[in-house]
Amino acid sequence: MSAIDKKALSRLLADAPSNWGKWGSEDEVGALNYLTDEEIKLGVAAIRRSRPFALGAPIATATGDPVFPGRWAARHYMVADKAGFEARHWRPLPGGLEFADDYVSGFAQAGTHCDALGHMWFDDTLWNGYPAASTNGGMTKASIEPIARRGIVGRAVMLDVARFPGKTFLQRAETFDHRDLLECARSQAVEIKPRSILMLRTGWLGALQRGEARIDETYWEPGLTFSLELVRWFAQMEIPCFLTDTLANETTYEPNSGVMLVLHAALMRNLGVVFTEMAWLDELATACAEDSQYDGLYAASPLQVSRGTGGGLNPIFIK
Amino acid sequence: MSAIDKKALSRLLADAPSNWGKWGSEDEVGALNYLTDEEIKLGVAAIRRSRPFALGAPIATATGDPVFPGRWAARHYMVADKAGFEARHWRPLPGGLEFADDYVSGFAQAGTHCDALGHMWFDDTLWNGYPAASTNGGMTKASIEPIARRGIVGRAVMLDVARFPGKTFLQRAETFDHRDLLECARSQAVEIKPRSILMLRTGWLGALQRGEARIDETYWEPGLTFSLELVRWFAQMEIPCFLTDTLANETTYEPNSGVMLVLHAALMRNLGVVFTEMAWLDELATACAEDSQYDGLYAASPLQVSRGTGGGLNPIFIK
Amino acid sequence: MSAIDKKALSRLLADAPSNWGKWGSEDEVGALNYLTDEEIKLGVAAIRRSRPFALGAPIATATGDPVFPGRWAARHYMVADKAGFEARHWRPLPGGLEFADDYVSGFAQAGTHCDALGHMWFDDTLWNGYPAASTNGGMTKASIEPIARRGIVGRAVMLDVARFPGKTFLQRAETFDHRDLLECARSQAVEIKPRSILMLRTGWLGALQRGEARIDETYWEPGLTFSLELVRWFAQMEIPCFLTDTLANETTYEPNSGVMLVLHAALMRNLGVVFTEMAWLDELATACAEDSQYDGLYAASPLQVSRGTGGGLNPIFIK
Amino acid sequence: MSAIDKKALSRLLADAPSNWGKWGSEDEVGALNYLTDEEIKLGVAAIRRSRPFALGAPIATATGDPVFPGRWAARHYMVADKAGFEARHWRPLPGGLEFADDYVSGFAQAGTHCDALGHMWFDDTLWNGYPAASTNGGMTKASIEPIARRGIVGRAVMLDVARFPGKTFLQRAETFDHRDLLECARSQAVEIKPRSILMLRTGWLGALQRGEARIDETYWEPGLTFSLELVRWFAQMEIPCFLTDTLANETTYEPNSGVMLVLHAALMRNLGVVFTEMAWLDELATACAEDSQYDGLYAASPLQVSRGTGGGLNPIFIK
Repeated sequence: MSAIDKKALSRLLADAPSNWGKWGSEDEVGALNYLTDEEIKLGVAAIRRSRPFALGAPIATATGDPVFPGRWAARHYMVADKAGFEARHWRPLPGGLEFADDYVSGFAQAGTHCDALGHMWFDDTLWNGYPAASTNGGMTKASIEPIARRGIVGRAVMLDVARFPGKTFLQRAETFDHRDLLECARSQAVEIKPRSILMLRTGWLGALQRGEARIDETYWEPGLTFSLELVRWFAQMEIPCFLTDTLANETTYEPNSGVMLVLHAALMRNLGVVFTEMAWLDELATACAEDSQYDGLYAASPLQVSRGTGGGLNPIFIK
Repeated sequence: MSAIDKKALSRLLADAPSNWGKWGSEDEVGALNYLTDEEIKLGVAAIRRSRPFALGAPIATATGDPVFPGRWAARHYMVADKAGFEARHWRPLPGGLEFADDYVSGFAQAGTHCDALGHMWFDDTLWNGYPAASTNGGMTKASIEPIARRGIVGRAVMLDVARFPGKTFLQRAETFDHRDLLECARSQAVEIKPRSILMLRTGWLGALQRGEARIDETYWEPGLTFSLELVRWFAQMEIPCFLTDTLANETTYEPNSGVMLVLHAALMRNLGVVFTEMAWLDELATACAEDSQYDGLYAASPLQVSRGTGGGLNPIFIK
Repeated sequence: MSAIDKKALSRLLADAPSNWGKWGSEDEVGALNYLTDEEIKLGVAAIRRSRPFALGAPIATATGDPVFPGRWAARHYMVADKAGFEARHWRPLPGGLEFADDYVSGFAQAGTHCDALGHMWFDDTLWNGYPAASTNGGMTKASIEPIARRGIVGRAVMLDVARFPGKTFLQRAETFDHRDLLECARSQAVEIKPRSILMLRTGWLGALQRGEARIDETYWEPGLTFSLELVRWFAQMEIPCFLTDTLANETTYEPNSGVMLVLHAALMRNLGVVFTEMAWLDELATACAEDSQYDGLYAASPLQVSRGTGGGLNPIFIK
Repeated sequence: MSAIDKKALSRLLADAPSNWGKWGSEDEVGALNYLTDEEIKLGVAAIRRSRPFALGAPIATATGDPVFPGRWAARHYMVADKAGFEARHWRPLPGGLEFADDYVSGFAQAGTHCDALGHMWFDDTLWNGYPAASTNGGMTKASIEPIARRGIVGRAVMLDVARFPGKTFLQRAETFDHRDLLECARSQAVEIKPRSILMLRTGWLGALQRGEARIDETYWEPGLTFSLELVRWFAQMEIPCFLTDTLANETTYEPNSGVMLVLHAALMRNLGVVFTEMAWLDELATACAEDSQYDGLYAASPLQVSRGTGGGLNPIFIK
């Protein structure tokens, strides 16, 4: 890919829409501004069965979580356990209570997580025009903190992009776009309304967990693929946030140009759309297929990691 | 406290109620079983203003988060930032995208978090009778995982235990019990119903953040204090889960006997009540005082930390 | 390898020599007891050129250090740097000094390191008869601490097992034994004396660094291979410690039985020989080939990791 | 100390000596260049008793290591132990071997360690004129790596600055200078020669360990104190490296001006002297007092932390 110059992305997005300044020069939550009390009402109104789902994937697993190439797996370390008490590393509390305690380390974007709007950039400029140097030593602009303090609540729509064409999971480098989403919604008899939160299931995370897909040196995820039309559709539909069960919420490369992670530029950096990656959607998908209800209330907020580029979360969806 | 023998806790709770076996011998989520679809409906019905609140405190702050004595603060490490790209530690992705990335390490119970039901025990036995040795090297019973997969959704009631008697925050070692909660609810004109999730605000976390309270060698939190009556009230009311803005959800020592963290034994280990510690309740408290609405829908789930004793979360409350 | 029963190792070593009890029931440094002042004098006497070599490999490299399957790479995190001062995350000290600071995490056995004598065991018993349960929650017997407090100083002999047969590096699963060492010493005109520290160069670490060897699911290192004769030779020669430029100081499997890491059992657990793994020997090997001096003074001590199974070090060899 | 302007250090050192350029524009090991084979011979010649000492302090202790204010303690996490095998988190290797494994995290400058020459700077310039921006995201100039590859070997002199005036340990903020070192050497009947490595014992680390000294918000170490004469003496004596049993190798503040860590600027940044902090010298001091031999061979090298500001080590001294 060395032939791709560093300006390819700028050229590709020269005519793409932008929301910079739309919510003022100090805005750090972008398209989440679309989630007003009206959207919360729509979400609440969509609840029919009072069935909750938690959409977080396990983290710090013993076998090593799936992580995007270049990162390393989160890890879990036991600090105190019964054997540690027996070995006298720990003493019971006054009265007799003993305890287990443990430590976790991993990327702020480990497991199911939201990206901060400033996580990725080009032309030395983050979301809303903040300078890239504001990331130095910790994010002072467009970090995950304002998103975490605000929360993400609204009506969400589940689009089972894998089941729709009858697949267990989408294949390496397999792509879809907004027209596919609309067709999938139609087939599911659910409406993507303006300001809907989108939950896009590819089956990929399940395939990774089962060992039917692998992360190797030629890793290429299935996912949404770039076109100006798709970006304009996200802008016009005022999509605040979307989730996928993949590591990066979009297919890894733009097939025509080889440009990497174009939608992070076009949707996150330019439009302020909040990316929620690595959601666990398989149980929800099965339930939706059974009862044919694909919308409901989404309520989630990432950990408020100080100066963080992202934060883990375990989103709640109630339908 | 060395005079307190290791059996003091067993004696203190000899006549206390237990829910072991109530939901079968394999149960790992305890009182969350009370949160049926009826409770979710009650929570949804309590929404009147469609105002969401995110109740997570910041973590991995530059100055060091408050942690219970014996633990150490979570930390944030920048891995990639603009300066790292300038220094050529990182190269732009094909097309020109650059990125900030970061790493976090801390206790599974760092920041706002749920405790697993097996986090604390006495008499070598965890919640539901699981052996304490099941904690060795990672929790295989009553870990945070089943709670994280289930989620916690229901009607929650905010009880501003600090504002009720006109205080900014409760003092070191200051206590309250279920009768105080009932009085507080009455004064707030909100009803604690069976199976309500309780959110108890002491103002303590704010005091810690402002430096008006400190964590030192004689640390003694304000909070709920043990009595058999209180434990029975929690059992009869079928409280599934409660939150506080303190580090341990209860006052540190039982004043009469000096036994430490009695309610972790009586409520968590014996009744299966889920503890949610270090919630950030100050903004919510202000809003409640303004509009006099103290109940709503609570939707939260901790990170699904593999074999973990707890997991961070950023709970959503909608009123 | 599932067909190998858990008692295979016990049977294989039924007639192998043991040093348990030789230095008392409290001994935790094993064959290092052989390193008396006489051995130090021999080492000092071997210095002829006053040329020092540091034998430590780099750790926490940006590309990920080589680690034995099942471990994960050490990592380096920048905490403070000039950009962090410019971003005001840090303030200059009174007077104007600024600083760079950084954090490292990794296995206690990351990079060039010594294993504690209790690092590996079978039949529930460590070196000198200590119970395996003494490892629970941190090593309380035969940890790296006593070795670290003592240090390792004596005469060492470099044996270039790769160059001797004219190779750049030994191949996957290629083995050698004590007779090969004696032949190699003869060809190098250096004497392996009783109580010599052995430095065995295979070229493998250089091959890993250059990408000519890889760590994958079928990883099988070149190295010393088990025979009862070899173990007896180590016992009779009273070898206190040996180094290799491989990850495990021995070939991964015993070719006949498939038993894994037999010499960790036969030499470390039974004889108390200190293993020093992942030493960087390529520059020293070149120098030795040039001046034909293969012995000298070895002076090293691992980090005194509290309750640790091992500790990093950067050994000094002077010839 | 807010009244001290950021230029105070520059003014204080306006007339102080510098070794920049002395060993070429690419030099990264500074005064270690003084340690030629002649110095190694002097060190070897000083060995009389063949008694080795390991000078590393324990790290990652259960109670928390002493660290300079602003850093946090190194920690030890058990990954595998016997209880973990019993709990089936781990399976024996083919043949039956089991193992303990563990993880350590801490500052690169945790425990006994060397500072890289670029660790501290003023006027945006490190040792030898390298730009401060070369520290961004990892040190690319004057890191610990060149020091680690070279090693530090020479004749070292122990100066028991505490015992000389009859003290157990020096007090908070107590200072000494080169004239005190000369007097101490005279009283010990040992000669500080040009290019000697100095080991300065204050007893402070022992006092910290015993709880007789504390690290609090007004922390002020005993140690060497700045004067132009002292800096010139270090320059003229061509001191390559010095060790202390304190956290910072010098007293914390310059008493007259309040400037912090002046010698890091005057000796490390300007002269290229290698600082070795937090050495454990108490046992060596006792032995020296018994046999009156205060010099010997010093052989040490820090861990080669990639792009690191420092590296841990466990120095060997043989007398």
